Amino acid sequence: MSMPEEIVIDPAVIKELQQFEDAISDVDLEIAAKQWLMTKDIFAKRQNSIAKIPGFWSVVFDKAVSELEAAITPRDNVIFQQALTAINVDRPEIPAGAKTTDTGIDKFGEPRSMTITFHFKENDFFTDSVLAKTFYYRYGNDGSTGLVSEPVKINWKAGKDVTEGLSDAAYGFWQAQKADASQQLDAALSGDARKARDAKAREMPQYKALAAMIEEKEMGATSFFNFFSYRGRWTSAAESVQAKAEAMAKRAKAGEVDEEEEEEEEEEFPEEHVETFPPGHDVAVTIGDDIFPSAIDYFLEDDIDSDIDLDSDDEDEEMEG
Amino acid sequence: MSMPEEIVIDPAVIKELQQFEDAISDVDLEIAAKQWLMTKDIFAKRQNSIAKIPGFWSVVFDKAVSELEAAITPRDNVIFQQALTAINVDRPEIPAGAKTTDTGIDKFGEPRSMTITFHFKENDFFTDSVLAKTFYYRYGNDGSTGLVSEPVKINWKAGKDVTEGLSDAAYGFWQAQKADASQQLDAALSGDARKARDAKAREMPQYKALAAMIEEKEMGATSFFNFFSYRGRWTSAAESVQAKAEAMAKRAKAGEVDEEEEEEEEEEFPEEHVETFPPGHDVAVTIGDDIFPSAIDYFLEDDIDSDIDLDSDDEDEEMEG
Repeated sequence: MSMPEEIVIDPAVIKELQQFEDAISDVDLEIAAKQWLMTKDIFAKRQNSIAKIPGFWSVVFDKAVSELEAAITPRDNVIFQQALTAINVDRPEIPAGAKTTDTGIDKFGEPRSMTITFHFKENDFFTDSVLAKTFYYRYGNDGSTGLVSEPVKINWKAGKDVTEGLSDAAYGFWQAQKADASQQLDAALSGDARKARDAKAREMPQYKALAAMIEEKEMGATSFFNFFSYRGRWTSAAESVQAKAEAMAKRAKAGEVDEEEEEEEEEEFPEEHVETFPPGHDVAVTIGDDIFPSAIDYFLEDDIDSDIDLDSDDEDEEMEG
Repeated sequence: MSMPEEIVIDPAVIKELQQFEDAISDVDLEIAAKQWLMTKDIFAKRQNSIAKIPGFWSVVFDKAVSELEAAITPRDNVIFQQALTAINVDRPEIPAGAKTTDTGIDKFGEPRSMTITFHFKENDFFTDSVLAKTFYYRYGNDGSTGLVSEPVKINWKAGKDVTEGLSDAAYGFWQAQKADASQQLDAALSGDARKARDAKAREMPQYKALAAMIEEKEMGATSFFNFFSYRGRWTSAAESVQAKAEAMAKRAKAGEVDEEEEEEEEEEFPEEHVETFPPGHDVAVTIGDDIFPSAIDYFLEDDIDSDIDLDSDDEDEEMEG
């Protein structure tokens, strides 16, 4: 028997599959919300023990470096070792009253949105004791979905900015957009309105300065601290509410095959040229869903080069034959 | 500031961290059980739609091949394409009465144990219409944990055995051990008793035949169908109950530092030499926790070489900037 040359599938069956995908993905989200509710107090208490181990989080970041996809530079590492005392992950869009026994994703808000908070002690590099970065899971009118975030200001000490001006420039562009009402950062934009907005943004001196800086540095050193400037393709809360409602309505048309599904062209948008931390979306998810909950695993993980002196325990040894 | 040369950590703090790990891992297990309870009916209905797409599962296995770590040979692929009609994953050690609103891992049995059932239509290769493989998550008296399984008999048609005798030999050794009461396959064994059992097993002609066959084939073709012979380091249910109780008791001694923790030496056990499918543990977990629940994702996944004709949908496009 040979490989079939082309599998042609009834579009109605594909719609059915997509409905099962939607149902499974709703369960996954509800489960993620419940998991967060069930673990948040454990994580809060865990930090008390972690605080007894100087450099805990810098060891964790070091061990998780391949999952981070992002270069943590030697200078970043110095900051982590010297000053990073605590990390916390919050899920600000899970309603305060949500209970693990609730059923239905409607009860759990948007569990993919998160705030990652880094606590620092006094250090040589910046004056901030807390850098908190909130990522919002948003639906765009063009059918896109993902995490967006506002650039965070880092108050670098003189001559100590490891991003070499990038974080200030990214924050400056964001502030300039915010100060310009015509940028409509809080509006629900149609495709055309977004295009007009983006064209205007590209004319801003702060945009040009940032774009030039990124172009110049392209092959140069990056820093993990650019993570705080990640913005994604900015989409307002208002637009997200509208686009999500539309996506849900489309979903509800069970089994109907929409032949006229509009194909939006992919647009160049200004963020593409001024994104200081392109892997920001994935790095946020990796920290929130993997590195933070599994921090102890990473910390205790055997490491050939490890200088950490531990009593090893063979409890986790597996029975693979 | 330079890298600290050695981080010496108070063993009491390590114990604390391990307790948090235990608490987090209990939540993870409870969450996994709830997820299974919340999705099993969706998966059952999903199969009705999947059945309308000939070759669905062979496409899924093909797309998931890098996650499988295991070579699916061209001959395996022919069997999948020709005959694999359905896959189901069950969690036989989650009690029938468990509800998603239950709280506490005690209510959910052992959610890591699973049965993976492959359904086949009539084919040129074997007479079985169902191959069901159960993996039990077991605790060993030596502190090991993991999935163990009994080899499954595949009734190959004459000259059609793609494992080239391996599956029959593995099943034959297992049957020989089962027929020999002194092998105590159902007993809770101490380390010494296991050593004696293993030494006797190594004298069995079926052991020797299987070991010789594996040695001879070492560089030869493997087949995914050896998955059905995976056994892991066999540990009985009785031993698991005993060892788990011991592990839980150890856990309960909160904060106590056990200086005299016995370090069991790693033993060579006969399964190591007669394991026909060494990645069986990880492949089972990958199928159960990833490939089966995400089957539609894999199926619809864009593939440069894909011959599948689909209406693409930009809904999942991400906003990464």
